[in-house]
Amino acid sequence: MKKLINAPDQVVADALRGIQAAHGDRLRVSLDPYLLVRADAPVRGKVGLVSGGGSGHEPMHGGYVGRGMLDAACPGEVFTSPTPDQMLAATKAVDGGAGVVHIVKNYTGDVLNFEMAADLAGGEGIEVATVLTNDDVAVEDSLYTAGRRGVGVTVLVEKIAGAAAEAGRSLQEVAEIGRRVNAQGRSMGMALTPCVTPASGRPSFELAEDEVEIGIGIHGEPGRFREQAGPASQVAERLMTPILEDLPFRSGDRVLAFVNGMGGTPLLELYVVYAEVARIAAAHGLRIERNLIGNYITSLEMQGCSITLLKLDDELERYWDAPVDTPALRWGA
Amino acid sequence: MKKLINAPDQVVADALRGIQAAHGDRLRVSLDPYLLVRADAPVRGKVGLVSGGGSGHEPMHGGYVGRGMLDAACPGEVFTSPTPDQMLAATKAVDGGAGVVHIVKNYTGDVLNFEMAADLAGGEGIEVATVLTNDDVAVEDSLYTAGRRGVGVTVLVEKIAGAAAEAGRSLQEVAEIGRRVNAQGRSMGMALTPCVTPASGRPSFELAEDEVEIGIGIHGEPGRFREQAGPASQVAERLMTPILEDLPFRSGDRVLAFVNGMGGTPLLELYVVYAEVARIAAAHGLRIERNLIGNYITSLEMQGCSITLLKLDDELERYWDAPVDTPALRWGA
Repeated sequence: MKKLINAPDQVVADALRGIQAAHGDRLRVSLDPYLLVRADAPVRGKVGLVSGGGSGHEPMHGGYVGRGMLDAACPGEVFTSPTPDQMLAATKAVDGGAGVVHIVKNYTGDVLNFEMAADLAGGEGIEVATVLTNDDVAVEDSLYTAGRRGVGVTVLVEKIAGAAAEAGRSLQEVAEIGRRVNAQGRSMGMALTPCVTPASGRPSFELAEDEVEIGIGIHGEPGRFREQAGPASQVAERLMTPILEDLPFRSGDRVLAFVNGMGGTPLLELYVVYAEVARIAAAHGLRIERNLIGNYITSLEMQGCSITLLKLDDELERYWDAPVDTPALRWGA
Repeated sequence: MKKLINAPDQVVADALRGIQAAHGDRLRVSLDPYLLVRADAPVRGKVGLVSGGGSGHEPMHGGYVGRGMLDAACPGEVFTSPTPDQMLAATKAVDGGAGVVHIVKNYTGDVLNFEMAADLAGGEGIEVATVLTNDDVAVEDSLYTAGRRGVGVTVLVEKIAGAAAEAGRSLQEVAEIGRRVNAQGRSMGMALTPCVTPASGRPSFELAEDEVEIGIGIHGEPGRFREQAGPASQVAERLMTPILEDLPFRSGDRVLAFVNGMGGTPLLELYVVYAEVARIAAAHGLRIERNLIGNYITSLEMQGCSITLLKLDDELERYWDAPVDTPALRWGA
């Protein structure tokens, strides 16, 4: 295993030092516990947004802390849930008196710990609403979840609910909008190669030289099936068909199409995949009104991609377009 | 070799189709010849900026076409120079009557073809000024160059000269500013793994399981030396020391620090490297006033990173901060 790290047990702390050095003008970074908080938090009267989860999915979530998106992120060790104490500290740091939304990807550890943190925050008089993301159509239950996994749609929830909070919407409204994004979004991913966690030093799974895994999770959890590696057009069909059938998406729907890289796949290839997504979407009568292409929710150096489709309405589109100013997503600001 | 492509000889055309589908509202994409042009080009009275080179370095250059940066990019096949005809077509497409700057990375094929294109453009009455980038301190001559290779500083030249052009500066002024960025910038890269071009299907070089290559080029060209893989702190020293000595950078200098991923390295690790860069810069009395961290000039799926330091002055800093609106770099717009 070769990695650009100092030591496996230091990687998250070292990366946080890097984020502090790079973005300390906009974020406050704590190493004990691990925490990234918007520099101007808490914003008086604004609903606060907190997310978090295991590290190894960068830029999610730390890269999305800033105006128009998250108020705080609490990173765990690589592929390990943060603790309730961390989540509570984040919640208190961003509470501006209007309540706090927890955006939680559906993995058992994250769900339990965020529930506990919400209880603890409630005990301190902070109202918390939770938005659970579970957009992965690949499997119903999986290695780390009861029910579907939360994947790509989480980025879209953070952006859109973040804009709603910035616009002064109430706790219940922001949470409702976040839940609507999750309800109207579907994702599926695939891998060409496994990833290697720094702590284990071993590939997360084995895959033959000519095989791909369809329906993979963002921790290398098993997907639906393996098959001989085919062209990008086939990969896109494998992912798009279950996504389109699941919501279902219908002819005439306006959508946001998100082609996400798993971390080790060149952008050149992501655009090849996007061309196929656009072709398939057009064949189904979908109108892609917005798009996002790049590494936004990753699995360390895994090669592969995921596709997320979100059915848009006027409100979601307006909040998607609203200014955002974070290390990883920035426009209009 | 597994890749998210349809066929090795279609990869650039397919990716351009994806770019057209995704960014067709802001860019005009041509497949014959390969060309990406700002939707509103030519901008009357504005100096036009053209760059180009082999594909496989995305988002460079196509991702940098848009307001405040390039007016056009001409991509070649993977790791293959575009042709003079392509460059001429790009030059004509962006000529708004104030002349055109060619930003050329120092590789023999690119240099010769851009020279020919400049001659042809001159014959058609378009004044062309060339900015050559050759910031790589790793080697003096290399596999594809006489003199130093052009690498990370190219991104900075495109941003800063692009802002100068947008601000209405003259052809000579924009070219002078671009040359100043190159003259005040130094880079060096390293690799943990090779990359695999779609056409060859084979790794660009062999590297042992525990070895890294220091001073690598962006096509997998040999670097300075190989050594046992060490911690990120050592990697950062290996790259920073030659960079700091070369300009040389001096205590009190204001700099932009750019940690670039080669394509297959997780963002988590790039932030670990950035922490080391910040530490070393501080030890040398440098003030990092701006930074850029991510995959900006890549070598397909190569794992590794490069570091670029640019000595700033007020003008360069102002143009760096100016609004930019491209697929890959966007702020203030």
